[in-house]
Amino acid sequence: MQKKIDLYCMAYQDRSDRVRWLLEELKIPYQDHFLKKAAGEMDSPAYRQLNPMGRTPTLVDGDIVLFESAAICMYIADTYGYGSFAPKIEDRQARADYTKWMIWSVGSLECVIARMFTHVSTEEEKKVTHAFNKQQAEIFKLALNPILSKQDYILASGFSAADIMLATIIPGAEEFLVKGNPPLEAYMARMMKREAAVRAKVF
Amino acid sequence: MQKKIDLYCMAYQDRSDRVRWLLEELKIPYQDHFLKKAAGEMDSPAYRQLNPMGRTPTLVDGDIVLFESAAICMYIADTYGYGSFAPKIEDRQARADYTKWMIWSVGSLECVIARMFTHVSTEEEKKVTHAFNKQQAEIFKLALNPILSKQDYILASGFSAADIMLATIIPGAEEFLVKGNPPLEAYMARMMKREAAVRAKVF
Repeated sequence: MQKKIDLYCMAYQDRSDRVRWLLEELKIPYQDHFLKKAAGEMDSPAYRQLNPMGRTPTLVDGDIVLFESAAICMYIADTYGYGSFAPKIEDRQARADYTKWMIWSVGSLECVIARMFTHVSTEEEKKVTHAFNKQQAEIFKLALNPILSKQDYILASGFSAADIMLATIIPGAEEFLVKGNPPLEAYMARMMKREAAVRAKVF
Repeated sequence: MQKKIDLYCMAYQDRSDRVRWLLEELKIPYQDHFLKKAAGEMDSPAYRQLNPMGRTPTLVDGDIVLFESAAICMYIADTYGYGSFAPKIEDRQARADYTKWMIWSVGSLECVIARMFTHVSTEEEKKVTHAFNKQQAEIFKLALNPILSKQDYILASGFSAADIMLATIIPGAEEFLVKGNPPLEAYMARMMKREAAVRAKVF
């Protein structure tokens, strides 16, 4: 019997959400471990052994230990869903597109969305931040809308781990990116209906 | 004869640096295209066809077009350096480590370094930013120092595209992360000596 995969996280709706969703899609047995930051559980020597930065999520699959949610998803998709949830290396066009969206979701989308929530206090700062957020969302739309207007998933080949990354990160810019933008409203509605996402309590 | 790869960028030392370095390591023929932002060359319909967000770098390799520097490096390593510059999928431990560092370099390192350079004006803001930068660099050290104290490259298997990502991004936090930190000083010195990096004018 396959040993269960261990998933260390803080809550269902932190960056472990995408990992859990993918595990549910692939019907891989796993065990959640909810760490209590206030109780110092992310600073324990045992946990720091797994994740030296004391962050979550961390995945333990037998001998394999890794962190960074997108890397965990790429590892799971390559190991348990190769050729379906992740295009094969030799399928060059699809693999290039897949890799592009996996990286884009982290480097261009999530990184900027995190900045959208930078603490602002004065009215002037709020105005600047609001303008920044709107402008960034328009750039995101340039990348996403043409594709999601003509196909259901970000890859022409169908649903993949790249959709899981995008659909867990996009809601962070809900107000600017999704609301009143039909291709993304439809995309998110499609994603939220997936049984694996429901089981994983993503939304 | 193989058609040359086209690399669209703004300057040698923008995010095209890591792509050029990797191409030089692999001795793949390529052509640089330096775009002039002020002349609107990033907004031309022809360029927007390649990169809808009008950013750089963009790679064109025959039919394959992609953006996001880390994705471009993963694509090149998987296509032209599979099993050397990128571990093979079936080499699970090395591939997991590789993927982790490729993603970490973008999502945790570069994203935070970009915030380090957020414009600050008041003395109070400068203090807060300086404290933030020092604290973040200490977290980076937790991830990097234990590994780079005992081996020359981030992967136990040797030099890979992950080193190129790290070595092009780490200098952004030079003052906080490298100076006075022997494992990283030695690592960066090793990287800067690589002939391919010199040919690519990375440093």
